[in-house]
Amino acid sequence: MENIKDTEAFIENIKLLLNEKKYSDLRDIFEEMNPADISAIFSELNESRIPLLFRLLPKVLAAEVFVEMNPEAQAMLIQGFSDNELKDVLEELYIDDAVDIVEEMPANVVKRIILNTDPETRQMINEILKYPEDSAGSIMTIEYVSLRPNMTVEEAFKRIRRTGIDKETIYTCYVTDNNRLLIGAISIKTLLLADEDTIIRDLMDTNIIYAHTLEDQETVANKFKKYDLLAIPVVDDENRLVGIVTFDDAMDVIQEEATEDIKKMAAIIPNDKTYFRTNIFETWKARIPWLLLLMISATFTGMIITSFEEALAAQVVLTAYIPMLMDTGGNSGGQASATVIRALSLEEIEFNDIFRVIWKEARVALLCGITLSACNFVKLLLIDRIGVYVALTVCITLIVTIFFAKIIGCTLPILAKKIGFDPAVMASPFITTLVDAISLLVYFRMASFILKI
Amino acid sequence: MENIKDTEAFIENIKLLLNEKKYSDLRDIFEEMNPADISAIFSELNESRIPLLFRLLPKVLAAEVFVEMNPEAQAMLIQGFSDNELKDVLEELYIDDAVDIVEEMPANVVKRIILNTDPETRQMINEILKYPEDSAGSIMTIEYVSLRPNMTVEEAFKRIRRTGIDKETIYTCYVTDNNRLLIGAISIKTLLLADEDTIIRDLMDTNIIYAHTLEDQETVANKFKKYDLLAIPVVDDENRLVGIVTFDDAMDVIQEEATEDIKKMAAIIPNDKTYFRTNIFETWKARIPWLLLLMISATFTGMIITSFEEALAAQVVLTAYIPMLMDTGGNSGGQASATVIRALSLEEIEFNDIFRVIWKEARVALLCGITLSACNFVKLLLIDRIGVYVALTVCITLIVTIFFAKIIGCTLPILAKKIGFDPAVMASPFITTLVDAISLLVYFRMASFILKI
Repeated sequence: MENIKDTEAFIENIKLLLNEKKYSDLRDIFEEMNPADISAIFSELNESRIPLLFRLLPKVLAAEVFVEMNPEAQAMLIQGFSDNELKDVLEELYIDDAVDIVEEMPANVVKRIILNTDPETRQMINEILKYPEDSAGSIMTIEYVSLRPNMTVEEAFKRIRRTGIDKETIYTCYVTDNNRLLIGAISIKTLLLADEDTIIRDLMDTNIIYAHTLEDQETVANKFKKYDLLAIPVVDDENRLVGIVTFDDAMDVIQEEATEDIKKMAAIIPNDKTYFRTNIFETWKARIPWLLLLMISATFTGMIITSFEEALAAQVVLTAYIPMLMDTGGNSGGQASATVIRALSLEEIEFNDIFRVIWKEARVALLCGITLSACNFVKLLLIDRIGVYVALTVCITLIVTIFFAKIIGCTLPILAKKIGFDPAVMASPFITTLVDAISLLVYFRMASFILKI
Repeated sequence: MENIKDTEAFIENIKLLLNEKKYSDLRDIFEEMNPADISAIFSELNESRIPLLFRLLPKVLAAEVFVEMNPEAQAMLIQGFSDNELKDVLEELYIDDAVDIVEEMPANVVKRIILNTDPETRQMINEILKYPEDSAGSIMTIEYVSLRPNMTVEEAFKRIRRTGIDKETIYTCYVTDNNRLLIGAISIKTLLLADEDTIIRDLMDTNIIYAHTLEDQETVANKFKKYDLLAIPVVDDENRLVGIVTFDDAMDVIQEEATEDIKKMAAIIPNDKTYFRTNIFETWKARIPWLLLLMISATFTGMIITSFEEALAAQVVLTAYIPMLMDTGGNSGGQASATVIRALSLEEIEFNDIFRVIWKEARVALLCGITLSACNFVKLLLIDRIGVYVALTVCITLIVTIFFAKIIGCTLPILAKKIGFDPAVMASPFITTLVDAISLLVYFRMASFILKI
């Protein structure tokens, strides 16, 4: 009944038992543990030990641990399995987990998997594989409990008891008609609290929240959040029930999508591997394209500086404030874009709100610009002791830069989404590069106007 | 059975029915709808209409809609309620929802709420209110089904049928002994598939994943994800069961924490209001502290430039590459820090991994630095047509800057977490400011070494 706190000592103990070949002790330990914890322990051990330990586990637990392991370990295990062992594991998997595994495995392993599944399962796997990545269809499972509208509660329970053991969830059951059209949903709670003779039709909820097979997984996950659902039924073009998505998949999607947004916002091309499972070449490949693109864009900023070389030579002090102006512009724009990108993801903002967003950001920009300029003005005069006109040049540039930065920062993500791009790429790094150029142009324009150079 | 697609037309229809005082039609429409959708419709209408519409809803639905509304609308409704109406709504609320509402309301409204709840509920609300914000205790509910180990399955079902209607979830039941110590958990699925005479003790799972009242909500949410749980029991210091956290709360936490990280990473002080519910002064207050701090830090970068004024005057061409070097350094560091911050949140990385992380980032930094420098070198010679030595200065600076940027970017978040700060603050804006200064120092050092100025 204790969470495994002292993992290191625990792993040492496992290693010791392994070396002493105390296999039945090991089995007893594992039988009391959670699949996710066992898989975490396995990943800490020498790879060559895993197949042996895996064979100690009872069949159902073995399959559950298998699902939790990383694709490399899964591939290694499958390659070591006999055909019978492989069949045993595959038989115990939920279809959506089997699909996840097939998607991650190299071709030769997939071939062995397909050869060792029964034709019915194979067909179900292929059915799900045909849906595009990130669609509701691709994350659904087809193992749900379906009821008929004319059943009684008693009959429904009989059906649930008979078929429920293999279903991913039995807590929401779906009611379909003769043509597999989805006509209602009913929770086990409702069934339990109802009289045995009541007809399902009279109990079921007909106002169902559902998803379409091709709907984006993020939209589906947002529905879970909005309506606090345990599962969402997935229907095809003809409104026929083809599967369900369960809350645990929705939780994964919420977390994955947030991770993806964070990476894109930091100019990284997202992949779905964990930090240490991504090797350095993959990491390099994920980071270099944006770095290169942004480096090239930044050279335009350099060209602006070059073209104002004379002005800078005349007033060398101006150079000292370039980093401050560029950074503050970038930060201001980054704040607006991050806020708007997140609000778009959470569906708090949509395209129609664009003018409300701009109006809000414009006022926030003025407030921020005036505050920062005032602080800066005092500092320029009292600490840096530069002339009033140079100080004015810097401070007016600051206000104008922040204004542009916030407007660009809030507008670009919304426009990107409208034309079908991912808003998250319109985040700080991109905005910074753009705002750098603008801040310099404003700066030199102001300098030539105020300082007459 | 249709998702509300055409919301605008739908709202127009509601307004029409309201103006024509067709209240029973309105009631019929709302009765078929989901609470989250009704609340969304309400928020689109004139505030003065809400109390009237609210009174049309049946009691249970009214309470469900109330929970979904934003705090301003809730406060307004409560102020308009008679004591009886308020009692009716409060009676239907789950305790954790009641606590959320109490936390958001102004003091005078809270007083009215407390006056209108029965003593038992009041005590339960106070019980939860005493836990620190963001702890498991603060998000738990105390409405769970508890069973005794010596009950039979049949007795358990009787108990569930009798008490289940008011519980937030009945799908996982918790088994406690005479001292309220948590000794097991059992799912409705297990109960349904078992024989009626089996004793709970023989069926229950004793290897329970649980949370402590003071545990951080993010840690609790990560457990939901890791173990695919519907609910997690919360125990106090003596291992007594005091409440449960359900998956929908965990989903909210996952999303809130991601939003909070994204905001902190963009140098914004997070709050938990939506974009449009935050007024411009609140937005300003959330954004200005970091802008100010970073602006002041950026002046150090300016001071570095000033101190190398002579070198710049001797080789004005050097100025042109300052933005590119600063931006690329900032972007490189931002990539590393964003990746590490997210991995820390998802518990993929911990403090002990710091050297593995540095070793990985160092190699990635070299790969990125060499790639970018090579591209840049060719461009400097062929397009910009600057001298080989200046080109060398720029390119070597680039490699060194990227190296420092990645190392700083990956180290600071891990160190911040170790000393109890939020790693998310060590993101791009902060790293950029730091790396700017470093890149300039390296640049001028290289220039004086290679170009002898």
